[in-house]
Amino acid sequence: MQNTLSAAVLLIGNELLSGSIQDLNLSHIATRLEERGIRVRETRIVPDIEEDIVDAIDALRTRFQYVFTTGGIGPTHDDITSDSIAKAFGVPNVIQQDVFDSMKAYLDSKGAEFTPAAQRMAYAPEGAEMIYAQQSMIPGYRIGNVYVMAGVPRIMQIMLGGIIEQLDTGVAIVNKKIHANVSEGEIAAALEIIQNQHPDIDIGSYPQDKGSTLSDYRVVFMVKGTDEQDVDATCSEILDACSAGEFDAILAD
Amino acid sequence: MQNTLSAAVLLIGNELLSGSIQDLNLSHIATRLEERGIRVRETRIVPDIEEDIVDAIDALRTRFQYVFTTGGIGPTHDDITSDSIAKAFGVPNVIQQDVFDSMKAYLDSKGAEFTPAAQRMAYAPEGAEMIYAQQSMIPGYRIGNVYVMAGVPRIMQIMLGGIIEQLDTGVAIVNKKIHANVSEGEIAAALEIIQNQHPDIDIGSYPQDKGSTLSDYRVVFMVKGTDEQDVDATCSEILDACSAGEFDAILAD
Repeated sequence: MQNTLSAAVLLIGNELLSGSIQDLNLSHIATRLEERGIRVRETRIVPDIEEDIVDAIDALRTRFQYVFTTGGIGPTHDDITSDSIAKAFGVPNVIQQDVFDSMKAYLDSKGAEFTPAAQRMAYAPEGAEMIYAQQSMIPGYRIGNVYVMAGVPRIMQIMLGGIIEQLDTGVAIVNKKIHANVSEGEIAAALEIIQNQHPDIDIGSYPQDKGSTLSDYRVVFMVKGTDEQDVDATCSEILDACSAGEFDAILAD
Repeated sequence: MQNTLSAAVLLIGNELLSGSIQDLNLSHIATRLEERGIRVRETRIVPDIEEDIVDAIDALRTRFQYVFTTGGIGPTHDDITSDSIAKAFGVPNVIQQDVFDSMKAYLDSKGAEFTPAAQRMAYAPEGAEMIYAQQSMIPGYRIGNVYVMAGVPRIMQIMLGGIIEQLDTGVAIVNKKIHANVSEGEIAAALEIIQNQHPDIDIGSYPQDKGSTLSDYRVVFMVKGTDEQDVDATCSEILDACSAGEFDAILAD
């Protein structure tokens, strides 16, 4: 797709990797980025193992314009994101005095102890710029083209909201979706012709598992591009192709 | 974790990557594999772009004992998994005569046309071993240590069920989960001591976003290991640590 910027998302955590905790961040990040013309081109999920995080960061930050991470910046022993990011950038993980002071003031005001575990959250790689989230004591940060955010969706969303305006802007991507009661095999040939006629449009085709949803459509077509007229024309042609084959199809909301 | 085998999961598809289609396969694959002592150590999501699929396959198949892929083996223009896997292995993508014949027989019996688009599904990389799924005309396949499966969850699950017994077996992993009404900061120090006393156990700590669930616990601890007694002892110590701090905690089902 033309004129779009690229990004990668790195989700950090053993339980995301084993599917025990369902990721809720990728979809939000991808949607917000697409509005700005930034396209997620790769997502990785890695465990809480320093070497794995370092390798992933190094691989992604050289290939994509932006890298967004979530998870592993809390106070517990398995929160090793900052140590790992510092290592990837070859800098020490250092105390952020402003963060330390405001955490201390907050905890003092509550009569709570500022434990060594909590103090770890006031560290970030040397040279990092903090990303504050009003509802969280612990900021995320940017270092180079890597944005480090919390794993808890509500906090991550606030952090992303705080930085989104600072990102470079590509041409925004327009998404349309069609639900059709057709099997992929019955429409594949027509779809390929339409795709060839619209080389700048991405047409994705996703078979639906009947019985796993209440709806009766059997395939979803996703139509994406940076030129809204071209997207609309492509959708019309897909709807026409379904109609010509006497298959039901509608533009979804 | 000792005595476990490693695997990677590669999810293929533009819309998985942008979160428009929610992945339902990772959790199932990871759970089935863990029962056999095989641990998912990395997951990647890549778009329907040949170069990206080839690069991911090459990176993963050399680092992990098994690689499981889902998606992109259907009849439409964006189904390029087999071409890409063949390229990664440096072999041609060739017709599988048995598959072709049975697809043709099936479609003939229905009076349906065997279109060129559908015929593409009878191709697989040279040397691949088919993985048949009773409810699908299109088999998956194994080539080297890479298992190529459908993206539709019901079909993928049948394919995985058909091959799971053939995989090498590590020591099975035992998982326990604790819900606790404590903040991570309040328990981090105790948790780190427990972790240090049980070096073969993975203790994960996952803060929950109050308001996003109906339950009132604030953190989930995931406790994993290959020695059930060690897992149980670790859980008891976490429950005791919560109790000592007057925090509610229970072993979850």
